[in-house]
Amino acid sequence: MAFKVGLLGLGTVGAGTAEILLNPAQRHPLLQEIELYRIGVRSLDKPRAVKLPPDLLLTTDLDAIVTDPNIDVVVEVIGGLEPARSLMLKAIAHGKHVVTANKAAIARFGDEIFTAANEAGVYVLLEAAVAGGIPVIEPLKQSLCANRIQMIMGIVNGTTNYILSRMQMEGSSFESVLADAQALGYAEADPTADVDGLDAADKIAILASLAFGGRIKLAEVHCEGIRQVSAADIAYAEKLGFVIKLLATAKRDSQIAHEDSGLAQLQVRVHPTLVPKIHPLASVNGVFNAILIEGDPVGQVMFYGPGAGAGPTASAIVSDILNIAAILKVGRGSNMGRSSNVAQGNNVQADGKPLLDPLLACSHQDYCTIAPISDLVTRFYARVLTHDHPGVIGKLGTCFGSHNVSLESIVQIGLRNDRAEIVVITHHVREGNFRAALEEIRSFESVTVPSVLRVV
Amino acid sequence: MAFKVGLLGLGTVGAGTAEILLNPAQRHPLLQEIELYRIGVRSLDKPRAVKLPPDLLLTTDLDAIVTDPNIDVVVEVIGGLEPARSLMLKAIAHGKHVVTANKAAIARFGDEIFTAANEAGVYVLLEAAVAGGIPVIEPLKQSLCANRIQMIMGIVNGTTNYILSRMQMEGSSFESVLADAQALGYAEADPTADVDGLDAADKIAILASLAFGGRIKLAEVHCEGIRQVSAADIAYAEKLGFVIKLLATAKRDSQIAHEDSGLAQLQVRVHPTLVPKIHPLASVNGVFNAILIEGDPVGQVMFYGPGAGAGPTASAIVSDILNIAAILKVGRGSNMGRSSNVAQGNNVQADGKPLLDPLLACSHQDYCTIAPISDLVTRFYARVLTHDHPGVIGKLGTCFGSHNVSLESIVQIGLRNDRAEIVVITHHVREGNFRAALEEIRSFESVTVPSVLRVV
Repeated sequence: MAFKVGLLGLGTVGAGTAEILLNPAQRHPLLQEIELYRIGVRSLDKPRAVKLPPDLLLTTDLDAIVTDPNIDVVVEVIGGLEPARSLMLKAIAHGKHVVTANKAAIARFGDEIFTAANEAGVYVLLEAAVAGGIPVIEPLKQSLCANRIQMIMGIVNGTTNYILSRMQMEGSSFESVLADAQALGYAEADPTADVDGLDAADKIAILASLAFGGRIKLAEVHCEGIRQVSAADIAYAEKLGFVIKLLATAKRDSQIAHEDSGLAQLQVRVHPTLVPKIHPLASVNGVFNAILIEGDPVGQVMFYGPGAGAGPTASAIVSDILNIAAILKVGRGSNMGRSSNVAQGNNVQADGKPLLDPLLACSHQDYCTIAPISDLVTRFYARVLTHDHPGVIGKLGTCFGSHNVSLESIVQIGLRNDRAEIVVITHHVREGNFRAALEEIRSFESVTVPSVLRVV
Repeated sequence: MAFKVGLLGLGTVGAGTAEILLNPAQRHPLLQEIELYRIGVRSLDKPRAVKLPPDLLLTTDLDAIVTDPNIDVVVEVIGGLEPARSLMLKAIAHGKHVVTANKAAIARFGDEIFTAANEAGVYVLLEAAVAGGIPVIEPLKQSLCANRIQMIMGIVNGTTNYILSRMQMEGSSFESVLADAQALGYAEADPTADVDGLDAADKIAILASLAFGGRIKLAEVHCEGIRQVSAADIAYAEKLGFVIKLLATAKRDSQIAHEDSGLAQLQVRVHPTLVPKIHPLASVNGVFNAILIEGDPVGQVMFYGPGAGAGPTASAIVSDILNIAAILKVGRGSNMGRSSNVAQGNNVQADGKPLLDPLLACSHQDYCTIAPISDLVTRFYARVLTHDHPGVIGKLGTCFGSHNVSLESIVQIGLRNDRAEIVVITHHVREGNFRAALEEIRSFESVTVPSVLRVV
């Protein structure tokens, strides 16, 4: 018996997926039992990056794929919110398992999609949605499942890491590297989702949900991009022993107890960050991604690799398909009959709901509490421009002190356009206090604060 | 219904495992369904690193645990070859699933153990056997299963990496760092298994078997340790842009076609290696482990973290227990009834054998062919001591050339005890040719070759 796959989308990632499914030699023998059965596309005539067998049916009728009684697994790689969301929901309602690379849709509609999947007794797997080919979703669900996860910290957006790496290497400005990255195809014409941190926010929301066992409201994820990072900041950071990276972080907040439920209160945030050069994430350069996971009792483990691209993403997608096929083959839990949307046989819980593997299914019901960013306790780097007159450093220091912001160092680095350029590094301080001090400092005559960055 | 675990061994790793099983709060809810039911120890009176509840039965009768009809999963953390092997086989024969951290037993008796497990319809999981807490076995089996694996290259022995890192940092000799590592408990009183590469050989044999889908004869794994690595070699390597690491490598050998079966011909080897400083493995220092996996289409991914220790190893063991519990809970494949050694219900194949998840079970029947080390094509580093007279470099160069060994550089680094110290780096050459040249060079008057290392 072959397991039949319906593929929605035949762009870069879809073509990469088809390529593996059509060439199973020297891969896991189970791949020979997977049949690429239908492909849904927007246009039938477009030239494709993959050579398809003549009998493989391409169709523009995507609805017909997600309702096809012969199909076991629907792979969604069209991206975007709609019609991706509706197609996934319809596939689930028709008893199909779903494999998706769509971080945007999962980060926004994950609750709806997973609730539907649990009702229907099907799996929704999404290894490809975060960090491309790097195994991180399944290791979090399975290999690290004994741990109490404390923190996830990652470089999960290749475009911004490429830009920051080149700024670091060449001393160039954000604007010039972005333009070049666009010309080379590493950044999109509209780079907003990447450079403003939105893509990274989607991904850390997904990872946080898995790691901490609760749902995450995307709007509560604090998100800053890299537009404000200047060549000057990178140069100063370098002198101080740091590199600047766009980090996505989700952390169990031990300082504030959460009384209502067993769920952790979390910090979930994306922002450019000064990372010490000896930190494992500091040497992750170019389009590579890496995710550091800290758990009790495992300690810190890191996963590193290509965060995007047809091959790596297809690796994750086809591996997810095979994981579902392995489940179907031996009849573990789940809706095993095709196209029925109720579970059959004895794989049913006492309340009538179908039984799904508790490590692979997503059964979160409650939302995690996310601490406001003003409650964050961290170190800060700030670059201040001011009139060059005696006493200015004292005045800044006094102002920080009066807001309970303790400084590690305050150094006049030099002059820029006749103004004194001063770099401040704080100890661990409450973000709210730091922001209040900064507001007061900004009100001083002829003072500007061109950059404020957090420090790991 | 709780799943009952019988734990064999209550040393460092056993105590770490018990600690997690007894403290499920804030971990995956499935952990609350796992009951630590019996612990088998050598001595009942020994003080333990974990506080056990008074009603938990400790016993010195390990046989009674592996045959206990109430036990679902046997965890073997006593280590060593016997009685570990016999106990695992008896547990399997009694229908228990097995979780083990025992790389030595699996590398030697894996064929026997997995054959028995497949007959009995039980799983043998071993995430803890390689690289401690770092997820690598399950990612290879599941997250990367769509790939055609080309290479696995790793730092999988923490003791030798600690010694080499300290030699690098301090310029010290192997002997002095080893003595210090023994005093600090990072190396054993008899360090043979670590420093001679045997432990790394066990681990790469296990990884190669999983990655390339065939059994590996441990005796065919080429194995060199780090005793020959001197402070001088580390210093020269540093100048040339390299660090020296004990690498365990398994690689698909594309140069020699293997005609008899679909199985790959492999290189599987452990030896100290010059690694370029920009290589992802170069910055893995101290007791940390890292494994780089190269696959088509994923490219290169790396897994990094603590390779040993009670916490990390227990993380892997308890995660394996939970993975088995998840399977039992939803009745996927395998022998679901307790203590029966035949599969029941409809989870049986046509030939009567029980059905196991094809990604999680190990069903290799054939042995991989491993190429002899003399067929390896690689770069070499050699340090040669000789009389300091004109023409000596020419003589060495001519000898290498006559054996078809092409040189990248040959440099007189300086003098050592009145003899000229010459460092040779080759291009990619056949190891057999290089060894033949070296034999001839060693026959020259007053020439010695204190070190020969391979280069990544």
